[in-house]
Amino acid sequence: MSQSTPRGFLFSACAAGIKASGKPDLACAIAPDGAAAAAMFTRNQVVAAPVTLGRDHLRLSRGRINAVIVNAGNANCATGREGLKAARRVCADLARQLRIKPGQVFPSSTGIIGVPLPAEKITSALPALLHEAAETMEGFNAFSNAILTTDTRPKTAHQTIAFKNSFVTLAGTAKGAGMIHPNMATMLVYLFTDLAATPHELQTLLRPAVEESFNSISIDGDTSTNDTVLLLASGKSGVPLRPVRGEFKDAVKKACHSLAGQIVADGEGVKHVVRLRIEQARTRGEARRVARAVANSPLVKTAWAGADPNWGRILAAVGYSGVKIEPARVNIYIGEHQVCRRGSACDFDKEAAHACMQQPEYAIRIQLGSGNASLDFLSSDLTAEYVHINADYST
Amino acid sequence: MSQSTPRGFLFSACAAGIKASGKPDLACAIAPDGAAAAAMFTRNQVVAAPVTLGRDHLRLSRGRINAVIVNAGNANCATGREGLKAARRVCADLARQLRIKPGQVFPSSTGIIGVPLPAEKITSALPALLHEAAETMEGFNAFSNAILTTDTRPKTAHQTIAFKNSFVTLAGTAKGAGMIHPNMATMLVYLFTDLAATPHELQTLLRPAVEESFNSISIDGDTSTNDTVLLLASGKSGVPLRPVRGEFKDAVKKACHSLAGQIVADGEGVKHVVRLRIEQARTRGEARRVARAVANSPLVKTAWAGADPNWGRILAAVGYSGVKIEPARVNIYIGEHQVCRRGSACDFDKEAAHACMQQPEYAIRIQLGSGNASLDFLSSDLTAEYVHINADYST
Repeated sequence: MSQSTPRGFLFSACAAGIKASGKPDLACAIAPDGAAAAAMFTRNQVVAAPVTLGRDHLRLSRGRINAVIVNAGNANCATGREGLKAARRVCADLARQLRIKPGQVFPSSTGIIGVPLPAEKITSALPALLHEAAETMEGFNAFSNAILTTDTRPKTAHQTIAFKNSFVTLAGTAKGAGMIHPNMATMLVYLFTDLAATPHELQTLLRPAVEESFNSISIDGDTSTNDTVLLLASGKSGVPLRPVRGEFKDAVKKACHSLAGQIVADGEGVKHVVRLRIEQARTRGEARRVARAVANSPLVKTAWAGADPNWGRILAAVGYSGVKIEPARVNIYIGEHQVCRRGSACDFDKEAAHACMQQPEYAIRIQLGSGNASLDFLSSDLTAEYVHINADYST
Repeated sequence: MSQSTPRGFLFSACAAGIKASGKPDLACAIAPDGAAAAAMFTRNQVVAAPVTLGRDHLRLSRGRINAVIVNAGNANCATGREGLKAARRVCADLARQLRIKPGQVFPSSTGIIGVPLPAEKITSALPALLHEAAETMEGFNAFSNAILTTDTRPKTAHQTIAFKNSFVTLAGTAKGAGMIHPNMATMLVYLFTDLAATPHELQTLLRPAVEESFNSISIDGDTSTNDTVLLLASGKSGVPLRPVRGEFKDAVKKACHSLAGQIVADGEGVKHVVRLRIEQARTRGEARRVARAVANSPLVKTAWAGADPNWGRILAAVGYSGVKIEPARVNIYIGEHQVCRRGSACDFDKEAAHACMQQPEYAIRIQLGSGNASLDFLSSDLTAEYVHINADYST
């Protein structure tokens, strides 16, 4: 069976002139008969106008959304009342054209902070955008492409679940690139499915999947103001959640894991994806704190950039993570190579470890020797290219 | 009056062959009649052998130290029992030659983690090192030079206090460069004075000076395993603490501030030193958390590298600092230019702000609008050069 988009959604994208490059920067997804919605947002206290409005609209509509409108190139954050007004204007205009309520529109923005959102550029583009909207893979791919900022490629994931004579489709897309960090960072994720489920059921499924995927990755340790993960279910497959709950939960997790992995691999300047595995922690929470300390250490990340098996920096980061550890119980492995035994140097083949670290993706395992909890965490190196990308972003 | 070293200390340095470059890497300071000592160490749970031993020796000697021995090029950290043995061997050998107890020797190491300390290289060099020791500025400068690792220049500070017909001298030196972060990071600081004071008096003076200087700087957010600040007082000026307490306290603070500033300015790849000032915080502790979040954000630091007045990234870092803030009360200034008013964009001269940020040093002021506490914090940009330096350190 060839891939198809979830029934009940039309997709479209265009260049509205927000990005200086002239690339596509406006995307919409329309559910003509509505969709049940669940969402998770950034934990940053500074939130963008669309995040404030998105939360309001989910409450106003009681989790029934008919349209998603996303612009890239401008985050509409730190833009004050005018920013909120601009986001409202976009939602109202789209609602009027679709003959729905503004509260049934879910808005997102990503890009530079503190620059007024050019709402008129968006509203001018809406008629053509709606005209082009189609229930096709081309439309979905155009949506995936228009939400990108410094990403180098679109990120998508597809899952299908067979049920009796029918099937359920789940299609997801994400943008990431920089400011990626646990608690979600300039990251927008949209998951569309034609399963029939309530907003509450969706929320229950979404939270653990996000914790294990998007909240377990880090590129630069920054937590953005705009992060959003949205799950929409049109019900158009006719398949209800109950009989496929296990499979669907699994499909959501797989899609989230795939998108999270694609986000890290396409992180700004990333040359190496490192699969951190923390073992023998007292709790998963402690394992996560250790993983974050290691994944956010500039010294560790620059060593990874140079494929340098400098495990001492990893041990030092474990030591300042804030989690109580016994250094003399810590073991560290790079790929198959044990590089630190009981907190001390051990003989290892430096050339082989270096070769392992030259791969685009490899694993580092840290055993803390203090319990039974473990955690997987995706991280990346910190390269000179990351600096170049971010030193010139707004100028 | 020309600068002189504090009376009662002899200094010396040499190349013992620990650094592959063949540069000076071994330094000692000798107080033939002993000196009262106070010290502060890293808060990292993973500590190097010399830190463990240094703590022991301060306790054993009840704060009376006769010799300081420092090697650069090898941190003697994560080296297990052998590392502790090697550090003990160095102290014992030096003690034997000086006819003192090993507990009167204070050891330090800085450099790569996890590589066995070549103790025999150090002990072989000791006789010549002791022979050369002199109470001269040349000796002190040689000491300052030999303790460096990736630093590009020595860091020293001198203070003199006149008292009646006598005077008190304070001479300090430090090494820093990378892994610099609040709670002290690969940073060694030695302060020598000929004041007469007890170890307890010195400790009382040292703590606040360190909090406001070395614990209020950040280069890369990493906290090292070897950080040490040592203050030694020979008493040879004949001036007791009590009548000059205020001036001496001030002199220690000034020396610490000067050395901290030199450490940041000479941070790995640093092109811009940023004097962060957090104002209107509820407490100094909260001001410090905000300062650290901003000072450690790769996105903020790369924007500084590009002299990019991208204040949105600063606001975002304030938002995820963990300190409860009201975004609509936050003001941000770059130099004299207000770039964010009440959490929103405000008109400012971008060219002028950019020009301000092209200076080697400038100030950024963040007002939180939630209280009366304020804090100064020294930080730096994150450049491609930092990445190059750290991607190739051990290979």
